[in-house]
Amino acid sequence: MTAPFGLNEIKEALTRIRGWIHRTPIITSHQLDTLAGRKLFFKTENLQKTGSFKVRGACNAVFLEKEKNPDGPGVVTHSSGNHGQAVAYAAKCAGLACSVVVPEGTPKVKCDAIQHYGAELVFCQPSPAARKETCERIAEETGRAVIHPYDNYNVMAGQGTIALELLEEVPNLDAILVPISGGGMTSGIAVAAHHMQPSCRVYAVEPFGKMLEQSLKSKQRLWPNPPQFLNTIADAIRTQQFVFSVFAVEPEGKELQRCLVSRKRLWSNPPKFLDTVADSIRIQQVGELTFPVLCQFAETQVFSITDDQMVEGMRLAMERTKMVVEAASGAAVYAGVRCLEDVEPKVERVGVILCGGNVDLDQLPWIHPSTSY
Amino acid sequence: MTAPFGLNEIKEALTRIRGWIHRTPIITSHQLDTLAGRKLFFKTENLQKTGSFKVRGACNAVFLEKEKNPDGPGVVTHSSGNHGQAVAYAAKCAGLACSVVVPEGTPKVKCDAIQHYGAELVFCQPSPAARKETCERIAEETGRAVIHPYDNYNVMAGQGTIALELLEEVPNLDAILVPISGGGMTSGIAVAAHHMQPSCRVYAVEPFGKMLEQSLKSKQRLWPNPPQFLNTIADAIRTQQFVFSVFAVEPEGKELQRCLVSRKRLWSNPPKFLDTVADSIRIQQVGELTFPVLCQFAETQVFSITDDQMVEGMRLAMERTKMVVEAASGAAVYAGVRCLEDVEPKVERVGVILCGGNVDLDQLPWIHPSTSY
Repeated sequence: MTAPFGLNEIKEALTRIRGWIHRTPIITSHQLDTLAGRKLFFKTENLQKTGSFKVRGACNAVFLEKEKNPDGPGVVTHSSGNHGQAVAYAAKCAGLACSVVVPEGTPKVKCDAIQHYGAELVFCQPSPAARKETCERIAEETGRAVIHPYDNYNVMAGQGTIALELLEEVPNLDAILVPISGGGMTSGIAVAAHHMQPSCRVYAVEPFGKMLEQSLKSKQRLWPNPPQFLNTIADAIRTQQFVFSVFAVEPEGKELQRCLVSRKRLWSNPPKFLDTVADSIRIQQVGELTFPVLCQFAETQVFSITDDQMVEGMRLAMERTKMVVEAASGAAVYAGVRCLEDVEPKVERVGVILCGGNVDLDQLPWIHPSTSY
Repeated sequence: MTAPFGLNEIKEALTRIRGWIHRTPIITSHQLDTLAGRKLFFKTENLQKTGSFKVRGACNAVFLEKEKNPDGPGVVTHSSGNHGQAVAYAAKCAGLACSVVVPEGTPKVKCDAIQHYGAELVFCQPSPAARKETCERIAEETGRAVIHPYDNYNVMAGQGTIALELLEEVPNLDAILVPISGGGMTSGIAVAAHHMQPSCRVYAVEPFGKMLEQSLKSKQRLWPNPPQFLNTIADAIRTQQFVFSVFAVEPEGKELQRCLVSRKRLWSNPPKFLDTVADSIRIQQVGELTFPVLCQFAETQVFSITDDQMVEGMRLAMERTKMVVEAASGAAVYAGVRCLEDVEPKVERVGVILCGGNVDLDQLPWIHPSTSY
């Protein structure tokens, strides 16, 4: 199999989106290098427009939509997190109408961020099925193109521009560590690295419990259906805040701790509050389209990072690199500093993707030892 | 009067130190621009080696010492804060011996940071006089050169390299906002800007109560003697942490609040605990050598920023630019966003120096509303 997009598509993506995104700096930290025993190069996508890398893929996909259909009805997506903001921003840049489907109960701060870019908010029932259905209904009724957060080759190619910039500036990397959710960023980076520097290995860094490694090794989707949400703080720390605040006003406070400790979903079904925050919680499975790309281009070895470890990585990044990063970035930092000891062949020069910085500064996870995470 | 150093000395300084410091990125934030009503360009010295701009001046002064006296006895300074770390780092780079005088009771984390670079720690009584005396005694006994944190033209020229990089990358700035403590950074930047782009105004941003503006306008040192310490959280947030922890174990907790509210030192004399943290507290006066430079090259208008405002600026920087910054940087951010409305002639493009990022992440000032700051 060859990937349905290659280095050309990624280069074209960069040309397409360059004027609308930041070329983010690559920074280093002598202290973290000492701690890691190797050279780490941090690609600071936390400094990216809208606060995360998502804007790269969103811009590429939305701008292509605009090229295809300049006076078209616009775009639609479902996400109240980084992708929702990114698509809203991209649509604004392109001068396209945009609807973003978010579950009822989405915190006002997230709704504001999306509306700030002029997108229309559409509320739906807080279930994954309702979000997908609502999104598809809008697409059908209005003709708007659905911009999927990761199962979209134009989105993947857009995320691949991260590696283009990184490997241009730091050419001799042995490896790149990429936090993984749906797999769009890891796919794009893996394809770019494969073509630009075949010896550079691309590792996915997952929240503990994702079971990606087993699936990649067997080249089969081993995840149970329907897709589950992991109880991790990665990707959007606001989720954690929300959960905390929910439990702060309910007597079931300890329930969260019990679930986290056992790493099992002990809450009753159907989900209530957790479904409200589902969009910003990490889905266990990677996408249908990203999975084969990952099987071909990414390392089958995956680093599974626990919440404790993510928080340690997040804090190391903030203290030593002075970057405000979210927990998913912390996962990559932790992997870079602590997990490469036994990797063969040895990796000396490692790119680490700080994928986003959208974190609630009132709720930094190490500041609430009594509530735990 | 002409300054005892000019653009040549600053350019030479950059050539001298370039291999040992970071060229820090300049970042922008559309959201902060909207809030400010003008374009802000943040020079991210919080990403600098050792976590602050101080390393520029320290490297320049220490490397010049090395050139003058390659096999000399080394350098000495007194500071347990950013300057102490910076001199220790510079001496290590130069292969010179280094002593850093710190007051007894300096937190271990600060001592570790200095010793990490191989410098010798010398403890002294916790009074400004004892520190100065100890430093001078060591200089006399060992022949080591004293590296003053700001009253040293080589240090000032080193700090001026910030403006060199900033104005090279962003040539048409109307103004630069510089947090001021002893005045070394403001002096260096003012001299560089004066020569590179005479129309660019350099404004000092001071903690409320510093009285710099009056002194600059009258061209006289109006400060009472002996020098006082301001009760502000600027420059090293660890100070605040220390003060808090002191008061947390003493029944005089409210005393701090009363002092802050009245902006007067109500504590009994001689100072005890406060003197222990004196090195990282902002001294009210600027230096003897920096003052005339400032009178000539900096704006007489000075922005006085209260603690509340600094904290707002600090938080804006962390949320919107994703940069971990200390309170002094927050002062400049606040000034950039809130204080330029009535400035004539209008400033549209403004450089903002994020001077450092050495902040205690356990003690972010907005997280402890009950203890106040």
